[in-house]
Amino acid sequence: MTCDLCKPTSHEILWQDDFCRVVLLNDANYPAYCRVELIEHIKEMTDLAPAQRARMMKVVFSVEIALREIIQPDKINLASLGNKTPHLHWHVIPRFKDDKHFPNSHWGQARNSAMQPNIHSPSSASILSFKDKIKTHIAMNNAL
Amino acid sequence: MTCDLCKPTSHEILWQDDFCRVVLLNDANYPAYCRVELIEHIKEMTDLAPAQRARMMKVVFSVEIALREIIQPDKINLASLGNKTPHLHWHVIPRFKDDKHFPNSHWGQARNSAMQPNIHSPSSASILSFKDKIKTHIAMNNAL
Repeated sequence: MTCDLCKPTSHEILWQDDFCRVVLLNDANYPAYCRVELIEHIKEMTDLAPAQRARMMKVVFSVEIALREIIQPDKINLASLGNKTPHLHWHVIPRFKDDKHFPNSHWGQARNSAMQPNIHSPSSASILSFKDKIKTHIAMNNAL
Repeated sequence: MTCDLCKPTSHEILWQDDFCRVVLLNDANYPAYCRVELIEHIKEMTDLAPAQRARMMKVVFSVEIALREIIQPDKINLASLGNKTPHLHWHVIPRFKDDKHFPNSHWGQARNSAMQPNIHSPSSASILSFKDKIKTHIAMNNAL
């Protein structure tokens, strides 16, 4: 079985290096939903060496900071599940009180029967700014 | 509104220091489901200083290692959501192919209509061993 995350991504790449990449999922209900994907096919965080775990988390937290700056969500959700695709990836999901599932997990029961207007979508201009912010925060976090 | 995580916990504490605690949730479907709870009432990981983020993640990963050693799950799920309780806590959930929701998120749709036998429950003996392992791995991770 070929792993979906080992294939070239079909999503917009916001940032990448030789270790991991940040992609924008274009989820209809969560337009600023990002994923941080490890390049190598590794299953669990604790299969990585401690320094690599820290490296991946710095990218996750950099995306979180950039998302908070760009779209001011009511909450950030972070998750590494991988039950269907056991190749390390972190979901970084900006949540809003009027989104489809809030306050449930976005994997849980929907609370709003009608889809909310796409008001929390980053514009083309803010995607450029978002990319810059991710890059800046990764550099800052790595310098610490 | 009083925050549930600011109150004394009703769960068994597996490990704690002045920064965070590890509790066993005694979830009927996920008997080894743990939560790492920050002591202070803080909402987002990036509200913490980078060194504190790393400190919390070291505890999360120590619990992951201990769970893998004790019960050999098919997958570990990690998540920090906090939509209902915006006080930092990490879900550390050992998942099995025969558990109630696999491969869905445990917040998602159940896949097994009947509850599975409680075969992945840590015994009293292994809870003691689990506590020791968490303590050991936190000490090891902090020494790195």
